[in-house]
Amino acid sequence: MSDISSPPPADQLAAVTLDSDEIPKAEFSDRVPIQSIIRREDGGSGLAGKKARIGGWVKTGRKADKDAFAFLELNDGSCAGNLQVIVEASLSDLGQLVLTGTSVVVDGHLKLPPAGTKQKIELRADKVLHVGPVDPSKYPLPKGRLTLEFLRDFVHLRSRSNAISAVARIRNALAYATHTFFNKHGFLYVHTPIVTTSDCEGAGEMFQVTTLFSEAERLEKDLIQNPPPTEADIEAAKLVVQEKGEVVSQLKSAKANKKEISASVDELKKAKENVSKLEERSKLQPGIPRKDGKVDYTKDFFARQAFLTVSGQLQVESYVCALSSVYTFGPTFRAENSHTSRHLAEFWMVEPEIAFADLEDDMNCAEAYVKFLCQWLLDNCLEDMQFMADKIDKGCIDRLKLVASSPFVRLSYTEAVEILEESVKNGKKFENEVKWGIDLASEHERYLTEVKYQKPVIVYNYPKDIKAFYMRLNDDSKTVAAMDVLVPKVGELIGGSQREERYDVIQQRIKEMDLPVEPYEWYLDLRRYGTVKHAGFGLGFERMILFATGLENIRDVIPFPRYPGRADL
Amino acid sequence: MSDISSPPPADQLAAVTLDSDEIPKAEFSDRVPIQSIIRREDGGSGLAGKKARIGGWVKTGRKADKDAFAFLELNDGSCAGNLQVIVEASLSDLGQLVLTGTSVVVDGHLKLPPAGTKQKIELRADKVLHVGPVDPSKYPLPKGRLTLEFLRDFVHLRSRSNAISAVARIRNALAYATHTFFNKHGFLYVHTPIVTTSDCEGAGEMFQVTTLFSEAERLEKDLIQNPPPTEADIEAAKLVVQEKGEVVSQLKSAKANKKEISASVDELKKAKENVSKLEERSKLQPGIPRKDGKVDYTKDFFARQAFLTVSGQLQVESYVCALSSVYTFGPTFRAENSHTSRHLAEFWMVEPEIAFADLEDDMNCAEAYVKFLCQWLLDNCLEDMQFMADKIDKGCIDRLKLVASSPFVRLSYTEAVEILEESVKNGKKFENEVKWGIDLASEHERYLTEVKYQKPVIVYNYPKDIKAFYMRLNDDSKTVAAMDVLVPKVGELIGGSQREERYDVIQQRIKEMDLPVEPYEWYLDLRRYGTVKHAGFGLGFERMILFATGLENIRDVIPFPRYPGRADL
Repeated sequence: MSDISSPPPADQLAAVTLDSDEIPKAEFSDRVPIQSIIRREDGGSGLAGKKARIGGWVKTGRKADKDAFAFLELNDGSCAGNLQVIVEASLSDLGQLVLTGTSVVVDGHLKLPPAGTKQKIELRADKVLHVGPVDPSKYPLPKGRLTLEFLRDFVHLRSRSNAISAVARIRNALAYATHTFFNKHGFLYVHTPIVTTSDCEGAGEMFQVTTLFSEAERLEKDLIQNPPPTEADIEAAKLVVQEKGEVVSQLKSAKANKKEISASVDELKKAKENVSKLEERSKLQPGIPRKDGKVDYTKDFFARQAFLTVSGQLQVESYVCALSSVYTFGPTFRAENSHTSRHLAEFWMVEPEIAFADLEDDMNCAEAYVKFLCQWLLDNCLEDMQFMADKIDKGCIDRLKLVASSPFVRLSYTEAVEILEESVKNGKKFENEVKWGIDLASEHERYLTEVKYQKPVIVYNYPKDIKAFYMRLNDDSKTVAAMDVLVPKVGELIGGSQREERYDVIQQRIKEMDLPVEPYEWYLDLRRYGTVKHAGFGLGFERMILFATGLENIRDVIPFPRYPGRADL
Repeated sequence: MSDISSPPPADQLAAVTLDSDEIPKAEFSDRVPIQSIIRREDGGSGLAGKKARIGGWVKTGRKADKDAFAFLELNDGSCAGNLQVIVEASLSDLGQLVLTGTSVVVDGHLKLPPAGTKQKIELRADKVLHVGPVDPSKYPLPKGRLTLEFLRDFVHLRSRSNAISAVARIRNALAYATHTFFNKHGFLYVHTPIVTTSDCEGAGEMFQVTTLFSEAERLEKDLIQNPPPTEADIEAAKLVVQEKGEVVSQLKSAKANKKEISASVDELKKAKENVSKLEERSKLQPGIPRKDGKVDYTKDFFARQAFLTVSGQLQVESYVCALSSVYTFGPTFRAENSHTSRHLAEFWMVEPEIAFADLEDDMNCAEAYVKFLCQWLLDNCLEDMQFMADKIDKGCIDRLKLVASSPFVRLSYTEAVEILEESVKNGKKFENEVKWGIDLASEHERYLTEVKYQKPVIVYNYPKDIKAFYMRLNDDSKTVAAMDVLVPKVGELIGGSQREERYDVIQQRIKEMDLPVEPYEWYLDLRRYGTVKHAGFGLGFERMILFATGLENIRDVIPFPRYPGRADL
């Protein structure tokens, strides 16, 4: 891992133009974000003489002039760059101030630095309002080079590193760009469920959501504090019922007054209720409830087995068949025991769905969306992208420019296989055999996008046997209207398809694939009643960030990564 | 429930101005969204003579002129309004076409309707390209009045109703407004984890996430197909080891050649491995793994107990202590056995967090955010809000205007209690006693916001004993810097606080409240190293929709509601 402890020099950054020469304050705080000072076209020099309150964390600090001053590089996360702050010894304990990680709030005035320094503006402190100290012998993020691997063990602090804070800003920008793109094009954001009882792709890799364990624990405690009745307890209670019954009979046959009889009947009733309560309680068994040799999920919170969603697609299809253009953007889950740098147990997906659209519309949408994301980063995140280009992946900015500006290659699966076979003939070696019918392996996908075309490639019309039941059968009866968008660095970024809208065909496909029909009855309803052609796709949000930044490990592009054996915080 | 089957008349709708007189197409489909035609300032009349392809679902249809024509009210979800489409009998089977729920795609030309009709434009079909039929004897959503209660049993179809599709557009608008507001103010969107091992407010009400059941099932099947070895099997395998060992000894003492010895050693090694495999397998127990009388969570996917998050606050605090202004917007979960119209097991929360901010900044942010949402709906969703005003809650638009334009009342908790006590003196009856120290009940909150002030009220500085450990202790040592935003119709919409940033104080508070310190060590780190004052709040997204629309039941404002016993799809 390269050094990720310092931001790129200011003169390499693209400047941001702000609306006016006044310094915009953070609206819900009395400080000025550092971004508002240094990310102006003039680098902040036009603000010399103005007063500002600044808050942030010391990246590096040093004492100078025989400890008369401290020079602090202060960062507040609003941008990658730091503001240099000069503090006189009379204002604060400079020994604490210069330590990496210390938080500082100062009032000061902006001034031009001496000629020949890199920065265009600096702050001379007039008053130190707050210091949040750090004990450098204990602080987990010491000054200097810290690898991404090292930072993964401190997910609660790693956003203080330059790399992870840059990722956070890029991730935010891509999320906002996503909402902007789809809203601009008339798509409605639909929150599909996280807890689901529909199984899109096989329950084996799903997490189960349950309250059975906590219920069992609660019951276990309860039975210890309050042991269940013994048989003798129940017999005794039954005896009371018998006695009370006799009292009622006696009073009745003695023609006692109504009030007396009614009181004795009430007592009998209570005694009977007591017996049923005791009998009920005596049946309580600690542990997970079971019935007929299986876990009894009717006792679970949702009265059936429930899982974490693996995709919002099926559910969002119910909305597209009414609202015409929709998308979902939310967390999805896979309980795969996968320890690679490309897999997470919890990750975010963007899934648009378009009615009155076919596979070509779908590809057009996917291409336009990815281009939009790339252009957005170039327009809004160039400082952070420059950091990535300097520290992580030299080519990342050029890659964004290329993708934003050139049309994607489109190949049918059959053509793709022919190209791969051709390459094999010319001596290219693949680990996985190439022939019509295979699922393209990552090496094949990356050959197409990285070697053969060196830009994004959309492969469409895949063999039906390697794709899901809901993908629309083509007229050749051999392929389905599926498409994958492949990009350099990452391989598959997007998978999508035109959905099978013909009731007879989809029913047949469900049977062919040996899936149970019953769980899909609601999905078939969408084809039974007012069916329309529609298409959609899913983009793995973290993969998009890997593609954009050139980072290698998916655990570094989500704030709190979850994978086998690990779910910190 | 009032009738929700028909949209408001077109002349009551606020007009939308489109950029040009050309009809904007849906970009990734060849149809024109109905919105682009009828939601113009001129109601579409300026488009007369133009050709358009339209797709949608029939809301109502009728045959006319002795079955020579059908008049269809077509809706595509792009807006609340329908487009009237006229189809000649020669073009299609009109009997099918007029049935509610049928999908239709037509090419046609726009024309001015006869004078005196409500709509400003209609479409005369030239060609019917697609019909998705409906069998009215089976279609679950017949023409006519359908209550929201009825629709809840058909979550996969209910977005076809006017009410639920209006909610979907309002929900989308509020989500987009949320991202717009926070991005505009320099907040970064942070995806806090859904699966968490931190417990923010007590594990009792958390869902557990596990793979133990599926693992147990897998193992059970495996043990049936492939029974574990018996003791005899293991003895036999041990005998083989003994034999192989003897062979090795014999060969060695016979000074056999190296190759022979090495081969026999290999065989011995294999035999030994076989024994350990068999012994390992003989220990396999079907069922949930247990250790020391408890469930053994080290065998679970994350190697410990994991839950669905109840709030992203604690985790997002780790990001604010580096990035200064952040927010999260995602699903949260409560396993409460609550069957009310105000509770869901899965709901969405918006949680901003601001560094270098105190309680007043927090209140300013909350007020600005809620005002922004209200104004956004007035600016962008007036047609759907008009539907709500007509069918659900007369006052909803006025309420939005009031909230958007007038400052919120701000009261300390102590003042609020005084006002409530005063009202009790004046004869007001509450079910829950009013005195300093109580947690305000919903009836108290609604009295303040609905009766006393008739606008949003922020109550702040609550008694510390009724609030969470992380809220900042005030100088009076009796109250904490917490605040709730109360709004008419809903009561508590937002809860927030300034967070305790002082290490000693928060550690003391954790102990006072008898919480274990160890799980919060990472949270304490944020106070140990470079601590800064910060504040934040949470807005229940569904509550905001209830407030805006006046709908009564929270199950109607989320696409796929989850509550005890129910998780459809």
